Amino acid sequence: MHPPFEGRLDLDEWNAKVTDDTALVSLIHANNETGVIINVPKAASMAAERGVTVHVDAVQSAGKLPIDLAAWPVQLMSMAGHKFHGPKGVGALFVRRRTRLMPMLLGGSQERDLRAGTENVGGIVGMGIAAEIASRHGADVAEQVEALRNELERAILAGISTAHLNGGGADRIYNTTNIGFDGLEAAAILLLLSESGICASAGSACSSGSLEPSHVLKAMHVEERIAHGAIRLSLSKFNTREEVNRVAALPELVSKLTTLNRR
Amino acid sequence: MHPPFEGRLDLDEWNAKVTDDTALVSLIHANNETGVIINVPKAASMAAERGVTVHVDAVQSAGKLPIDLAAWPVQLMSMAGHKFHGPKGVGALFVRRRTRLMPMLLGGSQERDLRAGTENVGGIVGMGIAAEIASRHGADVAEQVEALRNELERAILAGISTAHLNGGGADRIYNTTNIGFDGLEAAAILLLLSESGICASAGSACSSGSLEPSHVLKAMHVEERIAHGAIRLSLSKFNTREEVNRVAALPELVSKLTTLNRR
Repeated sequence: MHPPFEGRLDLDEWNAKVTDDTALVSLIHANNETGVIINVPKAASMAAERGVTVHVDAVQSAGKLPIDLAAWPVQLMSMAGHKFHGPKGVGALFVRRRTRLMPMLLGGSQERDLRAGTENVGGIVGMGIAAEIASRHGADVAEQVEALRNELERAILAGISTAHLNGGGADRIYNTTNIGFDGLEAAAILLLLSESGICASAGSACSSGSLEPSHVLKAMHVEERIAHGAIRLSLSKFNTREEVNRVAALPELVSKLTTLNRR
Repeated sequence: MHPPFEGRLDLDEWNAKVTDDTALVSLIHANNETGVIINVPKAASMAAERGVTVHVDAVQSAGKLPIDLAAWPVQLMSMAGHKFHGPKGVGALFVRRRTRLMPMLLGGSQERDLRAGTENVGGIVGMGIAAEIASRHGADVAEQVEALRNELERAILAGISTAHLNGGGADRIYNTTNIGFDGLEAAAILLLLSESGICASAGSACSSGSLEPSHVLKAMHVEERIAHGAIRLSLSKFNTREEVNRVAALPELVSKLTTLNRR
């Protein structure tokens, strides 16, 4: 048996790496593979005391976790519309007053000279509406989705002795679970799930197609034989109990795989 | 009276500027301010003979003018969905096989490692459908819109002796007109049009808000007092004769302005 791999940020170790030459630190509020939550206000305060600009990657958390930009000493924060049921292809960058930015895309004066190109008007409006809905119904959704997620985890962990919850001991966002299956290939598990109409991923969507084990799990010191068999499941308010039950049948499917592997 | 300012590309002068150190030339198929068309296949052939990579900016022309990528010796071509009634915020880059590109946006393996970030799926589908419709009905639309555009130009030029058609002597795309009003401010004309519910622009949308005269008209040696009073009107298949008539009332409006200026 392995202890749960937690993926927590050791704030003191992290702070020791910030030097006088550090221009910017970027904190991922909720990790995109494990859902583990960083204490952003605490980490940001440590950086702010040293005069370092703080960027928060809130792509997984915006619309799901409480965020208080009035109180948090952060200068920049990124969000993506499709992570809270807005359209794909649109995001937002919060920029605190007096933060100086250089554009990456040149050639037009759109968005105050910061991003050249005709704005994705439909996407912007859609993301705004999605944010409104998320802020109105966030608490109810959190409770509902967390209950489903926990049920799913319990079913898989109870049914498969080689399953490990990556990040299980840390604070996690309510919709994500990352489970490693010791000695199995993530690709094989994804195939089984896909046959039941369930879309899961190994690692992040940004590196799908890669055969390397996740750099996140590596940094968490998850053993390679578990990291290779790690899948991520993300739930939303649109998931049903019936769907959770289909995933909860995974122990059966996995036992077939294990039997095949032993032949 | 001024001769029409044409904005044609002198291919020999242009070719003389291409040296052995030229890595890439970028040709704007139809100019975004005047609509003047460059002979892309001819210019591209001249560059290709010298082994120079050719990029075509077809943002104004894709979906409107004939484009033959099978025959044209170009390696790269940019298009934007909203220029042919697709959604805003989505574009396409044609890349000929064996053209090597470096990504500008890093951090994810999307689009074969060339553009990190979750794809704008809705935008991509919408742009595809818009392209299909444009290729099916392109010829009819061209005829209809060109007739309206020409009528509009005739009414303005006939009614205002100080009006000059910028690029009028050159091949132009059928939906654009750029007219300079000698001694008037473009902003004042835009305001008058706006009161009649007509949206026009001074220069390109990419530099709206700027008080500088257009760099395109400058390069065409349009006199500054005309360039300062230049507006661009773009038509589409959705414009009606009634709308054209409203713009055709511009001579009356402009004569009021001129009277005011003289007081």
